[in-house]
Amino acid sequence: MTALQRQGTAAKAASYALSTAGTAKKNQALEAIAQILTDCQEEWLSANAEDVAAAKAAGMRSAMLDRLTLTPDRIAGIVEGVRQVIALPDPIGRADRTETRPNGLIISRRRVPLGVIAIIFEARPNVTVDAAALCLKSGNVCILRGGKEAIRSNRAVTVLMRKALASAGLPEDCVSLVQDTGHETANELMHLEEYVDVLIPRGGAGLIRTVAKEASVPVIRTGEGVCHIYIDGEADLDMGAEILYNAKCSRPSVCNAVECVLIQEDVLEPFLKRAVPLLDRYRVELRCDEKARKVLGERGLSAAESDWDAEYDDYILAVRTVRDMEEAIAFINAHGTQHSESIITANYFKAQRFLDAVDAAAVYVNASTRFTDGGEFGLGAEIGISTQKMHARGPMGLEELTSCKYVVYGQGQVR
Amino acid sequence: MTALQRQGTAAKAASYALSTAGTAKKNQALEAIAQILTDCQEEWLSANAEDVAAAKAAGMRSAMLDRLTLTPDRIAGIVEGVRQVIALPDPIGRADRTETRPNGLIISRRRVPLGVIAIIFEARPNVTVDAAALCLKSGNVCILRGGKEAIRSNRAVTVLMRKALASAGLPEDCVSLVQDTGHETANELMHLEEYVDVLIPRGGAGLIRTVAKEASVPVIRTGEGVCHIYIDGEADLDMGAEILYNAKCSRPSVCNAVECVLIQEDVLEPFLKRAVPLLDRYRVELRCDEKARKVLGERGLSAAESDWDAEYDDYILAVRTVRDMEEAIAFINAHGTQHSESIITANYFKAQRFLDAVDAAAVYVNASTRFTDGGEFGLGAEIGISTQKMHARGPMGLEELTSCKYVVYGQGQVR
Repeated sequence: MTALQRQGTAAKAASYALSTAGTAKKNQALEAIAQILTDCQEEWLSANAEDVAAAKAAGMRSAMLDRLTLTPDRIAGIVEGVRQVIALPDPIGRADRTETRPNGLIISRRRVPLGVIAIIFEARPNVTVDAAALCLKSGNVCILRGGKEAIRSNRAVTVLMRKALASAGLPEDCVSLVQDTGHETANELMHLEEYVDVLIPRGGAGLIRTVAKEASVPVIRTGEGVCHIYIDGEADLDMGAEILYNAKCSRPSVCNAVECVLIQEDVLEPFLKRAVPLLDRYRVELRCDEKARKVLGERGLSAAESDWDAEYDDYILAVRTVRDMEEAIAFINAHGTQHSESIITANYFKAQRFLDAVDAAAVYVNASTRFTDGGEFGLGAEIGISTQKMHARGPMGLEELTSCKYVVYGQGQVR
Repeated sequence: MTALQRQGTAAKAASYALSTAGTAKKNQALEAIAQILTDCQEEWLSANAEDVAAAKAAGMRSAMLDRLTLTPDRIAGIVEGVRQVIALPDPIGRADRTETRPNGLIISRRRVPLGVIAIIFEARPNVTVDAAALCLKSGNVCILRGGKEAIRSNRAVTVLMRKALASAGLPEDCVSLVQDTGHETANELMHLEEYVDVLIPRGGAGLIRTVAKEASVPVIRTGEGVCHIYIDGEADLDMGAEILYNAKCSRPSVCNAVECVLIQEDVLEPFLKRAVPLLDRYRVELRCDEKARKVLGERGLSAAESDWDAEYDDYILAVRTVRDMEEAIAFINAHGTQHSESIITANYFKAQRFLDAVDAAAVYVNASTRFTDGGEFGLGAEIGISTQKMHARGPMGLEELTSCKYVVYGQGQVR
């Protein structure tokens, strides 16, 4: 047995205990985690300082360094997040369908945990606690595999969380960390079918595509976001410009940021006249089709073919002219990642048609794509945004971390 | 482009049209299918007669031949099945969660089709129509790939169904058949990620395991059934014997038939005394652990290690003695396929503990495992019984063939 198989065996065993632990017990464990992360934060901070020093020495760029770095304030935020999860309703055990059949059988469909969830993520130490808390509340055991840049931080915080679990009377194997951050071990995790019920990659598009392609365990793809805004010929152009500016510039590195604007040709010039001054505030680079480039002159660059499928995660925007809404819909269905898509229009029928015909997790009328988020959608917290159709789509909260079980009460029925 | 890629492209295009077709249009197409299968059944019957003749010549065994053979009565039954699907409520477009957020955004989660569903099945021509009808009603395009033994029958019925679709004003590519029944084409279908949203294998355990292992498109595993009945020390033994007899003998070839009985050691002898005379009616072969073999004498064979994981689909039963219920639960969780599991007991606390702790799609108290079925569970019809935890678990009706989409109505909101 490999180290990972032993870890998987322990996780599976813990999952049977955790699946029947009640809400009170799970909340007690979460509170113990919140407490130990507060009381023993020095252990986590000093391990993190070592990670940061090593990353600096290795020449990590500053945006990444910032993500890696923990501070007492950030830890307080993470602890606050754990307490928010405590406050969320527990989905486990709820029956969403109960029926007494003509033969007297009482059949009830109950929510149950998925079992063991493996999470592969990159160098953000906060993910360790966020993911563990959501899994724990939904009765799932998690196996965490973070990036090598954060390994000391992740080890320290996992030791603390496991102590907290034990103090609350739950198996410490409810949360465990893959100690080896090498690619071979990650690959082994993607094939740990006997022990892993679901694998969720959290990180950049490259990571997610690799995992989806390689894994033989079931995967939930999250966070691939090539999002579009379509400016219709009947749009309120000022509103459209504000929404585009928000969707591009408020946080360009996230998956619900817009990457491409499609503009109906009749309003191409007046719309750009309104939008470009806003985009200028962040010097957004505009990669344009021929028509838009003509309007923009020096301000616009020529788009390459690859720009129509690009997830920039940066202050860059693809700009494309379309003849009408149907062309926009077809383009979005061909080039989007089924994440978030928005139409800006004052026309009722077009709004309804766009909502129906665009195939994405979230489709908007007259609003920014940036709202696709568990908190904004009222789910309380999220483990990621699913861009696949099976199992869960859009922001994944606690309910999306569950499966179901049919429970059947009989009195001797045979068929 | 290969033939299958062209078929995938056509299917994907049809899926956009079908996803926005209303219930009336879809029911009209289903009625047209019911009508043409009645009016033109000679075409289907004569193609089927060729399949049957070829299969006979190739030495197909009689149980298989029977499954392959169509008759006017069987077609009438299939047509009746289509009309039952017409009568079922359409899950598409139903919003199961709608909320107005504090910022005024109206967010609604709507059911939408999965898109393109590929179905790989064996030599049962009725599956072609059943699967197409369920997919169509739930707004999904299907790509059907049947076994080579039924290829003439499947071609004939697909031609008829496509005519019916066109006559109802829907794209005929809503239903298509993979013309080549070779393994390479099946393998290509399992990797048609660009066009296939979900792949559902229907057939024996071998087929399902192969597909789950090979496919890179998302798969729903169905119908692997190593089901157990646990006879508790506090069971009504007569009821237990009747249930075991029903679960084993009423239809041993199906996935919800029982394969292994676990008997609490205190009641081993009295239970077997009641059960064996019933099992004798079908001369059920009993493969036993040491203790049971001692009780049964000549009537029991010694089980091999492989018997504890076997799906016999036949008049064979594994018999094992357990010390207590906890041993039974651990054994089931280790050896079952998470399909259907039943406890026979008069003890309330044991019943609840079994329901909680056994990890399966359906868990029963004092009833036969044979009830795990879409019709019996009140879903109306089923495309299979999922034995996985992601997306759907247990009998899959129309709702389980859907995904969701968040529809968001704004008035200029930015974040």
